[in-house]
Amino acid sequence: MKFTAKGLAARARIVEHAAELIYTHGVHGTSNELLRKASGVSGSQLTHYFPDKENLVLAVIEWQTEKILTLHTGSSFAGFDTIDALRKWAAFYVSYERACQEGCTLGSLAAEIVKADLDVHDRLAADFDRWKDVLRAGLDRMRDSGRLRLDADPARLANLLLAAMQGGMLLAQIERDVTPLRDALTAAIDHVQSFEVAQAPPGPG
Amino acid sequence: MKFTAKGLAARARIVEHAAELIYTHGVHGTSNELLRKASGVSGSQLTHYFPDKENLVLAVIEWQTEKILTLHTGSSFAGFDTIDALRKWAAFYVSYERACQEGCTLGSLAAEIVKADLDVHDRLAADFDRWKDVLRAGLDRMRDSGRLRLDADPARLANLLLAAMQGGMLLAQIERDVTPLRDALTAAIDHVQSFEVAQAPPGPG
Repeated sequence: MKFTAKGLAARARIVEHAAELIYTHGVHGTSNELLRKASGVSGSQLTHYFPDKENLVLAVIEWQTEKILTLHTGSSFAGFDTIDALRKWAAFYVSYERACQEGCTLGSLAAEIVKADLDVHDRLAADFDRWKDVLRAGLDRMRDSGRLRLDADPARLANLLLAAMQGGMLLAQIERDVTPLRDALTAAIDHVQSFEVAQAPPGPG
Repeated sequence: MKFTAKGLAARARIVEHAAELIYTHGVHGTSNELLRKASGVSGSQLTHYFPDKENLVLAVIEWQTEKILTLHTGSSFAGFDTIDALRKWAAFYVSYERACQEGCTLGSLAAEIVKADLDVHDRLAADFDRWKDVLRAGLDRMRDSGRLRLDADPARLANLLLAAMQGGMLLAQIERDVTPLRDALTAAIDHVQSFEVAQAPPGPG
């Protein structure tokens, strides 16, 4: 579908408000009525841009993924190729003020609808793969540059990091306390660090 | 509320069918109509035992928690006080045939409704705490008996294990592949094992 510049702006405004409502109330708690009120668009405009909830949820998944990838590939975490960068990444999520209330912007959405009768599964799988690739690529570079030992498995460690983050976020939401997220990420990164090559290895004697 | 023996049996049948439907289709995908058909009870019986969805969801949370605690405190995982027991625990979930489709029976339910307007939050928090306590108590015993070094932090490691399991289950569902769950649990237990005290430590010379 082709939209005018004005149409694209209206569509973007709807997606942004839908993302915020879904993040706060969940997909099932976000009605068309709430979205019309928040975004200021009419019911017919809403239906024009998003004929059904599946279209809207797909657009929100895409929007949240782009935000995550922009953050992860920007300068904040220095390409994820040092242990320090991983610690900064963990600190970012641990200090994120909405972690205990609403959790991960993309993971909480995925967890809510993974069993729902919406055809968004392939999109979610592809987007989580892109996210995990950023972590895995950083670990690959750490190993290739000799910072991590050759027995470090970047794919496995990336799965540990992302699972610890997603599971930690869920437990933090349930407990309304950030400790499980902090503990899980700290321990997961400690594990990555255990593969670090010592900077000044002892000589053979 | 007091029920007769027959009433208790009817209630239990409803909860068991509700648990299965919710596990398969999610809370939002489980209608009263589906539940009446599956359990063979009438609408008025259903309303009698569970006046609203919140009561039903609370009963299902309790039912799933009891199943998890029975499994975890039984003989399957030997009190969680060896690394081998943790490996068996991981293998159980990795080989669980519904892991990639429906995920964790309790975690997937929690993740779906943690933002919903249902007053089940305290119940979920208490139940996850009981679950985590089983893991933490095993790690405590491993440390107290000298199997783990004193710098092992059982509370932190229990958070890592449960987060890796929950996050791994979510990623497995999204990817429809058990690899993220296997990777996350293997690496998390590797990390616990890194605190293991060597069985035959080298002498001082």
